[in-house]
Amino acid sequence: MSLKNDRFLRALLRQPVDRTPVWMMRQAGRYLPEYRETRAQAGDFMSLCRNSALACEVTLQPLRRYSLDAAILFSDILTIPDAMGLGLHFEPGVGPKFTHPVQDRAAIDTLKKPNMTSDLGYVTEAVSVIRRELNGTVPLIGFSGSPWTLATYMVEGGPSKDFRHIKAMMYSDPEALHALLSLLADSVTDYLNAQILSGAQAVQIFDTWGGVLTTPAYQAFSLAYMKRIVEGLIREHEGREVPVILFTKQGGQWLEAIADSGCSAVGVDWGIELSQARTRVGTQVAIQGNLDPNVLFGTPEVIRSEVARTLESYGHGEGHIFNLGHGISQFTAPESVNIMLDTLHDLSPRYHS
Amino acid sequence: MSLKNDRFLRALLRQPVDRTPVWMMRQAGRYLPEYRETRAQAGDFMSLCRNSALACEVTLQPLRRYSLDAAILFSDILTIPDAMGLGLHFEPGVGPKFTHPVQDRAAIDTLKKPNMTSDLGYVTEAVSVIRRELNGTVPLIGFSGSPWTLATYMVEGGPSKDFRHIKAMMYSDPEALHALLSLLADSVTDYLNAQILSGAQAVQIFDTWGGVLTTPAYQAFSLAYMKRIVEGLIREHEGREVPVILFTKQGGQWLEAIADSGCSAVGVDWGIELSQARTRVGTQVAIQGNLDPNVLFGTPEVIRSEVARTLESYGHGEGHIFNLGHGISQFTAPESVNIMLDTLHDLSPRYHS
Repeated sequence: MSLKNDRFLRALLRQPVDRTPVWMMRQAGRYLPEYRETRAQAGDFMSLCRNSALACEVTLQPLRRYSLDAAILFSDILTIPDAMGLGLHFEPGVGPKFTHPVQDRAAIDTLKKPNMTSDLGYVTEAVSVIRRELNGTVPLIGFSGSPWTLATYMVEGGPSKDFRHIKAMMYSDPEALHALLSLLADSVTDYLNAQILSGAQAVQIFDTWGGVLTTPAYQAFSLAYMKRIVEGLIREHEGREVPVILFTKQGGQWLEAIADSGCSAVGVDWGIELSQARTRVGTQVAIQGNLDPNVLFGTPEVIRSEVARTLESYGHGEGHIFNLGHGISQFTAPESVNIMLDTLHDLSPRYHS
Repeated sequence: MSLKNDRFLRALLRQPVDRTPVWMMRQAGRYLPEYRETRAQAGDFMSLCRNSALACEVTLQPLRRYSLDAAILFSDILTIPDAMGLGLHFEPGVGPKFTHPVQDRAAIDTLKKPNMTSDLGYVTEAVSVIRRELNGTVPLIGFSGSPWTLATYMVEGGPSKDFRHIKAMMYSDPEALHALLSLLADSVTDYLNAQILSGAQAVQIFDTWGGVLTTPAYQAFSLAYMKRIVEGLIREHEGREVPVILFTKQGGQWLEAIADSGCSAVGVDWGIELSQARTRVGTQVAIQGNLDPNVLFGTPEVIRSEVARTLESYGHGEGHIFNLGHGISQFTAPESVNIMLDTLHDLSPRYHS
């Protein structure tokens, strides 16, 4: 079936578009009352992820409300470690926690790559259902956490401020960490390929915590494994190229290296100006970003001026996908998103003439 | 009285030294058993800060144990908002909290600049006592939080992950935030000058949270106020220049702008390579940093190689002050610090020949 709106995929491949495509990280989320209702029906968060009908429903909710150019699979970044048996659960006010963190080589050696059908079939099932329900309106993005980011949660046992357990492992038993990252890279490759084969038309790797590393450690412990995944991905499916987006939060200093990984696009947060990012990566990749989600707590005038500034910073021509620099806050007023999108759709065509 | 070891002050002014000077952020802290003992004597954390004899004792403890080139006043970064009556307290596992956060213009308009004698005299008293007890062995560093960083705690009411309250203010009532930052800049200027007049021989401004801003917001809401402070500081005292260090965590992308502020040195975290930092600031300022404190959880070999890498990255010549890129972790083994310092003192002279 042909895709009615392929702006997002075209922009990722640096092809001309009529206006700047847009989606929002965490666009299906708690800031939407309809999401909160469906979530309440499902019970806990992972039950929502595991129910393909409800996961599809929340994936589609933001598209009914807003003029967005892509849907993103509703799921969690920690499905792979969960499938490895670490006991994922969510502590209110804390976030994701693992009952069985992985803190030494012995624990790592017991881990196995999840089976994409028996362990993670609920994810590919959701991809298929969503893709069918989207009915060609906009493309569907699949995603995964990066090996480094998954490993941080697995080793720390949950969110961390200082990442001292995983860094202690990195600086005292790097081989153990490489064994873990290698297993995760293989798992993520299979996982994203399974999503692509089930209908995901682009994929994004979320490297939420790559930015806490030194430059050589980022190269060796995060980027190297993302690169290995990129090399192992199915890059053409259903007669179309499948673009890959790498998003390292606080990774602005490594843009050139990320762009060299073979990805199609680099996601950036608001810590870097798009003009500078574009100069640095040249025409090698597209750039996705980068409004600070907190701008959506601003006045309508500020939301408009910050959207305008973001567009102007990237400038004229192809290769920009508008997004936030991080997931939308659960406290955002849904109306603020309308102001952002109306401004974008009003102003962006002039950058593509 | 003459200073027996002025390596630190000389390096800050980019003068030649025999070896790379070193101190550690949070060097007087919980990783030291003798600190934990004194802290237990004092009761809570602020009682320790307010008792000049005990504050002096913990300031000197790391100097007894290690060959460091500077002492830093033992105090908290939130003494100014505490003196403004916000009700500072510490929640175990959470960190500093304010009973009365400041969330709108009306609350900001009630705030007054603290009196440096009646409200914050305990700090200058501690500076005098420490300076006397140091007896010219090494210089004493005074410090303050930056206006932006103090404001984040005052508006958020404590630590934050998303800084949504202060950013909501920034994007919806920037004049209110400017009023708060202006008051804080005046207060920090007076506070640091009082420390200098009491004996601090260098001062550091900790901009722990500047890195969460966009480039224009960093310039307008953080750097502009640090610049105003730098311009208002006493820069010569006791016949010596008083160097000023600006440390913005995750501020690597703004080094040139920070170096242009009039400061003597820029503190950097491990997110940027010192070689790159040095190229970018040229001979304008000294550079302080930047070992990841988590390296101290590594094997002796890794600690040695990372210290060697840090020295080699900065390279030959003047203007480097070795430090961690963030405060030392409370879980650090004190012996690991010896390995770091022994390596530094062994290797660094060759960079100054």
